[in-house]
Amino acid sequence: MTADDRTPGPVWPTVASLPGAVLALDLGGTQIRAAVALADGTLRHRTAVRTPSSDGPDAVVGACIRALEDVRRSFEATPTGANGRLIGIGISSPGPVDPFRGVVVDPPNLGPDFRDVPLAAHIDGALGLPVALDRDTQVAAMGEGVFGAARGARDFVYVTVSTGIGGAIVADGRLLRGPDGGAGELGHLLVDRSGPACGCGGVGHLEAIASGSAIARAGRAAAASGESALLARLVAAEGPGFGAPHVAAAEDAGDPAASRIMDDARDAFASSCIAIVDVFNPELIVVGGSLARGQGERWLGPARDAVSRRAFRLAARRVRVVPSQLGDDVGLLGAIVLVGSRAGG
Amino acid sequence: MTADDRTPGPVWPTVASLPGAVLALDLGGTQIRAAVALADGTLRHRTAVRTPSSDGPDAVVGACIRALEDVRRSFEATPTGANGRLIGIGISSPGPVDPFRGVVVDPPNLGPDFRDVPLAAHIDGALGLPVALDRDTQVAAMGEGVFGAARGARDFVYVTVSTGIGGAIVADGRLLRGPDGGAGELGHLLVDRSGPACGCGGVGHLEAIASGSAIARAGRAAAASGESALLARLVAAEGPGFGAPHVAAAEDAGDPAASRIMDDARDAFASSCIAIVDVFNPELIVVGGSLARGQGERWLGPARDAVSRRAFRLAARRVRVVPSQLGDDVGLLGAIVLVGSRAGG
Repeated sequence: MTADDRTPGPVWPTVASLPGAVLALDLGGTQIRAAVALADGTLRHRTAVRTPSSDGPDAVVGACIRALEDVRRSFEATPTGANGRLIGIGISSPGPVDPFRGVVVDPPNLGPDFRDVPLAAHIDGALGLPVALDRDTQVAAMGEGVFGAARGARDFVYVTVSTGIGGAIVADGRLLRGPDGGAGELGHLLVDRSGPACGCGGVGHLEAIASGSAIARAGRAAAASGESALLARLVAAEGPGFGAPHVAAAEDAGDPAASRIMDDARDAFASSCIAIVDVFNPELIVVGGSLARGQGERWLGPARDAVSRRAFRLAARRVRVVPSQLGDDVGLLGAIVLVGSRAGG
Repeated sequence: MTADDRTPGPVWPTVASLPGAVLALDLGGTQIRAAVALADGTLRHRTAVRTPSSDGPDAVVGACIRALEDVRRSFEATPTGANGRLIGIGISSPGPVDPFRGVVVDPPNLGPDFRDVPLAAHIDGALGLPVALDRDTQVAAMGEGVFGAARGARDFVYVTVSTGIGGAIVADGRLLRGPDGGAGELGHLLVDRSGPACGCGGVGHLEAIASGSAIARAGRAAAASGESALLARLVAAEGPGFGAPHVAAAEDAGDPAASRIMDDARDAFASSCIAIVDVFNPELIVVGGSLARGQGERWLGPARDAVSRRAFRLAARRVRVVPSQLGDDVGLLGAIVLVGSRAGG
């Protein structure tokens, strides 16, 4: 740590010189996706299977191994050029994880028994390749940093807004990890200390107000209270499938309750962006996730406006709030960077 | 940036091998303090003068130069040993500053005309020594990291609670700066988006609820509204000198309004600590500043309790919330580290 250790030069230097290809795995709550990922950001031999969360941890681990074996088989059956060698496996996993030991700790969406699973060791054992594993949002930030919206940025914050809200922080070209690998959980920034309970046990966090599940919960409440007949009809029609997209659709149809709920979520996100700018002084806030993607400028506009009006002058002048660029491939592309950084240092 | 770039080995390695002594300057809103600081953390030839903020920027810069010249004269008049050479000047300044150019941008407490003052260049010109300048909270974190409560810690957060609330973040042994040097402004974490206005233009920030000036403002309001006769008497007796210590004293005397105000401040601080733990996964939160120091365990206890009950499990198990150790000398001691890191890389 030095006063002027802001090293010039390329960020993530190890990726371009990666001496082979990577087996990439994106483990999600609903899907397991795998592919061969090349150092130039090309994905080949994709596969996707349903995540068998309800069948227990062994089934999930087995499905991951089979997906990777399938991908490796197709890769090996195909004549290749310079990228002919597989040098490692990169895994994007729901958090919390221990990235130093390759352990998935206790993610809420892989089933109740999925606790402290040494996924990296299982996969290394089955496939015989070195495995690097990290939290999905950390891997996504790596992907956006090398191949996406944050190419060339040394200081940026990645926020994903979908069912939950997650994040990652890159400062001076390095991903913040913390001693347990837990840094970056921006969904747990406080927004309103008298606000709704958060799934983590806290109160009034960003995720408890602006996430897809929070919006759905507020929509159901507005339906149940009689505040909105349209939301009540949507809840009845959709059943357990009712979610934030339906609240957003009700807003588009002119429903005042839906509009209040969506405004509340956008305002919470915008307010959090002010804190992010003041605390991190980033060049970019890269916003991903299905909810933010669906909302587009409607979601990003209020955030930009809040930052330019209310964050510190120099930091506000610097930052740009931009959409992520890699969509659903962000985890598979980030896996290249993850493996490259483990391999090269 | 790599997945396992958490370098083992000593943090701040350049300080112990510093080839001489440092002229340290702590520019504050009320006092300018200066001393010779040795690499072992010894301070010699101290001086302190009132900050002539109301006389304009030139007077403040002149007072800084004279204080440093006085200290250098005493140092040179004294026979010395191995630390005989002055190798540079380290300056702790109120923020915001541009640490890369050594410019003090527009601190609220050095007078209205103190804007974009190239203090490092002025002092280098007058004293002929290389100058390193940074925000007071960044310098304080360096001091605590080498000589104080965070010795040996690679990941810690420093928060100071006095008239205002400031902070600094050390991640994997490096101080977070951001491209404009503005990172670490933890006083502008959001606590309550429907809360009181913050001096920065924002709303409901930690500083707007838990700082000394926020507590004083709430105390005056409780006096004016008739809620507390004791606070009304204290406001009348103290006039412009009324501040957070009087609200704290009224709480000690059993005043319910004062107790509500102090509880509110402690709760805001504790809630912010949860977010700090979730977002940074630090080993330590080091809490400094006169208000936190005066409150002692009363301030830290609720923060520890909130973190252990409500932050993420692994991160909560890791972190300790501790008082700063260096008191009023933190800026002068941090200046050694600031100069050492600029000199050594």
